[in-house]
Amino acid sequence: MRMIELILKKRSSLEHNFKELKFIADGAASGAICDYQLSAWLMAVFLNGLSKNETAGLTKAMALSGDKMNLKSLKSARIDKHSTGGVGDGISLALAPIVASAGIIVPMMSGRGLGHTGGTLDKLESIKGFKVRLPQARIMSQLRKTGVSMFGQTERLAPSDKKLYSLRDATCTVESLPLIVSSILSKKYAEDLNGLVLDVKYGSGAFLKDFKNSRKLAVALKSTARRLGIECVAILTNMEEPLGNAIGNSIEMEQSIRVLKGEGGPKDFMEVLEILSGWMIYLGKKAKSVDEGINKAREVIKSGKALNKMREIIKWQKGDLRVLDNPGKFLPKAKFSSVIKAAKSGYIKKLDARTLGYTGIVLGAGRSRAEDAVDFGAGIILRKKTGDKVRAGEIIAVLYASSPSKINEGRKMFMKALEISKSKVRKLKIIKEIIK
Amino acid sequence: MRMIELILKKRSSLEHNFKELKFIADGAASGAICDYQLSAWLMAVFLNGLSKNETAGLTKAMALSGDKMNLKSLKSARIDKHSTGGVGDGISLALAPIVASAGIIVPMMSGRGLGHTGGTLDKLESIKGFKVRLPQARIMSQLRKTGVSMFGQTERLAPSDKKLYSLRDATCTVESLPLIVSSILSKKYAEDLNGLVLDVKYGSGAFLKDFKNSRKLAVALKSTARRLGIECVAILTNMEEPLGNAIGNSIEMEQSIRVLKGEGGPKDFMEVLEILSGWMIYLGKKAKSVDEGINKAREVIKSGKALNKMREIIKWQKGDLRVLDNPGKFLPKAKFSSVIKAAKSGYIKKLDARTLGYTGIVLGAGRSRAEDAVDFGAGIILRKKTGDKVRAGEIIAVLYASSPSKINEGRKMFMKALEISKSKVRKLKIIKEIIK
Repeated sequence: MRMIELILKKRSSLEHNFKELKFIADGAASGAICDYQLSAWLMAVFLNGLSKNETAGLTKAMALSGDKMNLKSLKSARIDKHSTGGVGDGISLALAPIVASAGIIVPMMSGRGLGHTGGTLDKLESIKGFKVRLPQARIMSQLRKTGVSMFGQTERLAPSDKKLYSLRDATCTVESLPLIVSSILSKKYAEDLNGLVLDVKYGSGAFLKDFKNSRKLAVALKSTARRLGIECVAILTNMEEPLGNAIGNSIEMEQSIRVLKGEGGPKDFMEVLEILSGWMIYLGKKAKSVDEGINKAREVIKSGKALNKMREIIKWQKGDLRVLDNPGKFLPKAKFSSVIKAAKSGYIKKLDARTLGYTGIVLGAGRSRAEDAVDFGAGIILRKKTGDKVRAGEIIAVLYASSPSKINEGRKMFMKALEISKSKVRKLKIIKEIIK
Repeated sequence: MRMIELILKKRSSLEHNFKELKFIADGAASGAICDYQLSAWLMAVFLNGLSKNETAGLTKAMALSGDKMNLKSLKSARIDKHSTGGVGDGISLALAPIVASAGIIVPMMSGRGLGHTGGTLDKLESIKGFKVRLPQARIMSQLRKTGVSMFGQTERLAPSDKKLYSLRDATCTVESLPLIVSSILSKKYAEDLNGLVLDVKYGSGAFLKDFKNSRKLAVALKSTARRLGIECVAILTNMEEPLGNAIGNSIEMEQSIRVLKGEGGPKDFMEVLEILSGWMIYLGKKAKSVDEGINKAREVIKSGKALNKMREIIKWQKGDLRVLDNPGKFLPKAKFSSVIKAAKSGYIKKLDARTLGYTGIVLGAGRSRAEDAVDFGAGIILRKKTGDKVRAGEIIAVLYASSPSKINEGRKMFMKALEISKSKVRKLKIIKEIIK
C-alpha cells in the first residue's frame, strides 16, 4: 500500500477501508509516512469528509496504533467520562471517586489545560506530590485494586493521535467533525471501555460555541462510540459562563474536595456532577435507572465512601493526603488577592466564560502555550453568577495571583467579561439536552 | 503574515492577494514555510481551486521567487515555445534554430524526459559534449550574440516551482489546472518573454489524454499568459500516435538535423514544425501573418540559414559539430536492432503513443525515475503511421537497444501498441484547433 494512492482516494471523495485507515494511523505513529503526505490527506479529509464507517474505522485504527488496555478480567463495567472542555469544569475531580465508590471501574484519562480551558491533570497536580504520568502497568494494578485511576495519555496510548493532532494544529484542519471524533474516541477505545458519558459544552467558553455545531459533535461522538461497541450518552451543557464558582487549579480542587466531604457545591456544578454520576453508574449497571444512579451518588457522598475513594486515589498516586483534611491550608494559594466589586446595583447579565478563561491565564492559572508552567494557586472565585442580584459595592469575585501586576491585568480582563443590567436576568439553564 | 492563516483562507475558498501568494512562493523557495504546511495548502488549492487573478498572481510570485532574466536591451522580440510533452516530440531541436535564424530571440528552456515522454535536453545531450546546464550569464551572452540558447531550468529560475512540484508529486496534487498553469508559466515569465507559442497535446501519449481537458488547459494557459503581458497562442495537436517517425534521443536528433539540412521530414512533424515556426515569427513581428511566418521558415531552411544557426548553437554549447555533416556516423547508435514486421496485410489502425513511449523506456531511451540515465542510441524508427497500408511481412518499425534482452522486451511492448485492421483507416489530423 502507498500513501500517495490513499491521498488520491480521499482527494477523489472515495471511501477508505479499515486496512487503509490502519496503514495511515500506523504510519503516522511510526513516522513511516512523512508529514507532508499526512497533511495533504488531512486537508482532503477536512474538505471531503469521512463517512460514518470511515470515522469509526479511523478511531479504531488510531487506538490500535498503540497499546490497547486489557481490562476484560475486571468484574465490573469500565466507564469513563469525557468533557469537550470549558472554564471551571473541575467535575472529574469529584466525579471519579464518586462513581468508583459506587462500584464502577473508572479509568479516567484526562488532559492538561490549554488556551482558555483548564485541564484535570493540572488541577490534580495542585496536590503536592500527586503523580499523573503513570506507566500503563501501574494504572492497571490501581484499577484492579481500587477501581479508579486518574492519569494522562501515555506514550503508547493512541500515539497516532498525538502526531495527527499536532499536524492538524499546524495545517488548519482541527475543526473537522470526523477528525475531532476520532481523536477523542481513539483514546477512549484504547481504554477498553464498556461505556462513556460525554459532557459536550456549548456557548462562549466551549470548544464549539454554537449549540447546533456542538449538538452535531455530540451526535457524531455518540453514534461512533456505539459503532465501536461502547455504550454512550452525550449531555449538552451550557458554557456561556464558567461552571461552578471556582476557576484555577487548587481553587477548583478545593471546591471538589468540599463536595466530596458533603459540604455541597454550586448549584450548576452539582447538577452536572449528579447527571454525569447518575449516567455513569447506570451505564455501569450498578443502577436500574439514571435517577437511581443519582441517588447512589448522593449516598456515597453522604456515607463518606466517595471521600475515602479520593483518599485512595491520592495515596496511590503519591499526593499529600493532608489536603483532604484541610484543603485551605495544604493546597497552594497565590500570595496576592483582590476583590471585584459591583460598580452599580442590578443583575449579573454576563460572566463571559471565554474571557474569564483568559483572565485565568493572565492571573497565571493557565497556559497560552503547551510548554508553559501553571501557577497552581492562581485563579478566580466567583461570588455571583448570571442572574444573581447585586448591590453596588457588593463583591462579585476574588482574584488570586502571584504578583500585583498580574492582579491588575486580571482585573482589567475580568471587567471585559462582566455585564450588569438594571432589569432582571434569567439564570442559565445548565443541562440543555441529553442525547441517548 | 503566517502560513496557517493563508491555509485557513484557501481552506475556506477565499481569494489570496498577490502579497500572500508572494509570501507562499518565497517561503517555498527559501524553506521558510515547512513542507507539511505547503502540502495542506496545495490540497486546499486542488480542491477549492484558484481564481484567474490568483493563478496569474501565483505564476508571477513563483517567477519572482528567483532571478528574472532581463532581456529588454535586446532589439528583437523574445519568443519561446512550450509543449505539454509527448512521444517523438523533438520539434524544438529544429524549431529553435529556424525561428532564431528568422531574427527572433529564442531563449528555449527545456526539460528532461520522464515516464513515457521524452525531453529536449536529453536529445541535445546525444550530441557529444553538448552542454545544457548553463549559468544564467552565459545564456544571456549567447542570446545577445546569436539570438538563441537551449538550456535547462537553472537553480535560480523559479526555485519555488521546483519545491512545489516535488510536493505536488508526493501529495497527489499534480492534476490541478491552476497549479499546472502556474508551474509552466512561472518559468516562462522568468524568461522575460514577449510571446509564447504553446503546443498542447491531447490523446494517448499526452499529459492530459482527453481533448476537453487539454483544451481547458490551453485556454487557461493562454489567458494567464495574456494577463501577465505575454502574447500567446495555444495550438492543440494530436498525440494519439507518436509525432514524426523517430522515438529516442539521437534518433530524434538525426530526424531534426535532416529537416534543417533541407532533406524534409515526416508529414505530421513538418506540419507542427511549420505552424509553430509561423506563429513564433509572427508573434515576434518578423512577419505580418502566420502564413508569411511559415514561408520565412521554409526560406531559412532552403537558404541554409537555419542549419548555420544550429551550427552556432552546437558551437556555443560545446557540442561535436561533426554531427551536422554526418549524423548517421557521429550520433550514438545502439548496438542491437530488430525489425517489426506486419503479421497480416491491412491498414495501421493504432500505434498507441503512450505504449510506444513506454517501449522507448524498455529499450533504454527513457527514464522511469528522475535519477535514471538514458541510453542515447536506443529507440524506435517508425516506417508506417496510422492509416498507412501494409502488406504482410512489410517492415513497420525498427527497434534499437544495447542488449538483445531489451530488444525482446521492447518487441513485446511494441506489439501491445500496434493494431492492424482489414478495412481502410483514416490518417490522423495533426492540428486540431488553434486558440488565439
